[in-house]
Amino acid sequence: MSTASSLPDLSRLCIHTITTKPWAIETSAAKFAAAGAKGITVWRDTLAGRNLGATRQMLRDHDLSVVSLCRGGFFPATTAAERIKALDDNRKAIAEAHELGAPLIVLVCGAVPGQSLLDSRKQIQDGIAALLPDCQSAGVKLAIEPLHPMYADSRSAVNTLGQANDMVEAIGSPLVGVAADVYHLWWDPALQQEIARCGRLNALFAFHVCDWRTPTIDLLNDRGLMGEGCIPLRQIRSWVEAAGFNGFHEVEVFSTRLWAMDQDEYLQQIVQAYRNHV
Amino acid sequence: MSTASSLPDLSRLCIHTITTKPWAIETSAAKFAAAGAKGITVWRDTLAGRNLGATRQMLRDHDLSVVSLCRGGFFPATTAAERIKALDDNRKAIAEAHELGAPLIVLVCGAVPGQSLLDSRKQIQDGIAALLPDCQSAGVKLAIEPLHPMYADSRSAVNTLGQANDMVEAIGSPLVGVAADVYHLWWDPALQQEIARCGRLNALFAFHVCDWRTPTIDLLNDRGLMGEGCIPLRQIRSWVEAAGFNGFHEVEVFSTRLWAMDQDEYLQQIVQAYRNHV
Repeated sequence: MSTASSLPDLSRLCIHTITTKPWAIETSAAKFAAAGAKGITVWRDTLAGRNLGATRQMLRDHDLSVVSLCRGGFFPATTAAERIKALDDNRKAIAEAHELGAPLIVLVCGAVPGQSLLDSRKQIQDGIAALLPDCQSAGVKLAIEPLHPMYADSRSAVNTLGQANDMVEAIGSPLVGVAADVYHLWWDPALQQEIARCGRLNALFAFHVCDWRTPTIDLLNDRGLMGEGCIPLRQIRSWVEAAGFNGFHEVEVFSTRLWAMDQDEYLQQIVQAYRNHV
Repeated sequence: MSTASSLPDLSRLCIHTITTKPWAIETSAAKFAAAGAKGITVWRDTLAGRNLGATRQMLRDHDLSVVSLCRGGFFPATTAAERIKALDDNRKAIAEAHELGAPLIVLVCGAVPGQSLLDSRKQIQDGIAALLPDCQSAGVKLAIEPLHPMYADSRSAVNTLGQANDMVEAIGSPLVGVAADVYHLWWDPALQQEIARCGRLNALFAFHVCDWRTPTIDLLNDRGLMGEGCIPLRQIRSWVEAAGFNGFHEVEVFSTRLWAMDQDEYLQQIVQAYRNHV
């Protein structure tokens, strides 16, 4: 099996604001930049009460690329009125991304417990298609993020990279691609071939890293830092690079345990884990 | 989408001893039979300290079919010595199944955190193949149970029905088939076609039911009773029946919440849920 070489520097390190959730975005930006990261992915909750133009300038002053805005999506709903409301919220996200200078929005596509997954998938595809004119005007792309099957009940009816690739093909717009997150995808026996296919579709828009801990004690907020778990990170990075990806490596960790740490110390661990394991 | 008709009676209802974990097997057997169930799947922990011949007779006296023994498997390990030990334990399970009159052993195939899933899958396949002479002598079959991808780190490197079918084909023995559990498989976009394929392979040996709750608060012990969650049970049963399956419907629920209930009351709910939702 091929493996990628270790990373020479931090020029492609991006950190999600939610990774250091206790910090305000201004703190995250200053600290990430000081630690050597060159990218930041902004979660929308961190923007509450901010002027987006000023935030854009603040991030630029720290020499941070805004890699993406997290997150849009949640298209499925049992009523047309709710689905329209979801589209409105996505249009708001597209406007925010435009103002912030984020070229990409990550989509957690949504699911409704008890509604058939087929229906939810159709609503997702229709929802994304409905947003394309807005994306075109704003110069913002969308990345379908396939989520782990343990989220198929309520967070996403798109649960494998193969399904995400199918949807990208069906939509057929250069504005729509995929965010590949190792946490969601590592177990998939078709992962290598679907990463390659995603590359051929020119649809590999983002690459998220973290780790899967044993035991995992919470379905949402017990992710591991790279190296703390069993995901073959370097191997998956080699597949992503073989598919032509040369974007940022985005550290996205939800962890009650790590959020309880001193966040400065944690950031040092993030950088070390990135050097040693990605 | 096709749906199966509601179940006219309890003649195909089987309950796993672990579903009513607080009860000893003698209690489970008496209560299951009194409630109208015709099958029981025995978990090995309930056999501790029992004479298997006497237990077999006890189950027969209650007119219960022993549907399967849970569980064998856990083949992968990092050392040859541990893999041999795993085979020994599986041979012990085969002997127990034979003594108990169980025609089938359910395999939780195993995985080792950090060992590549490809290696684990090879060790699983080799392990099953090594057991075939014992199965032949004992008149006991083996069912590969694909587990949900959230168990890929440490419980099973076989995570989809497609993978289980591939392994059944590769092994090519009428002694080896699949246990299809809705909890593990419901999210899979290829589920209907892989159930049909499993039927064509004459490999659909067992069908387990329960439900997926929203939110699920524990990765292991928060399963729902049928109807408490989002799994399209009746639709999946229709696919299973279209594939030619006419065996028991096995209720297998791990739930700290439901184990804490009065188990007599819970058993009534199980029967009601079976009638209403399977």
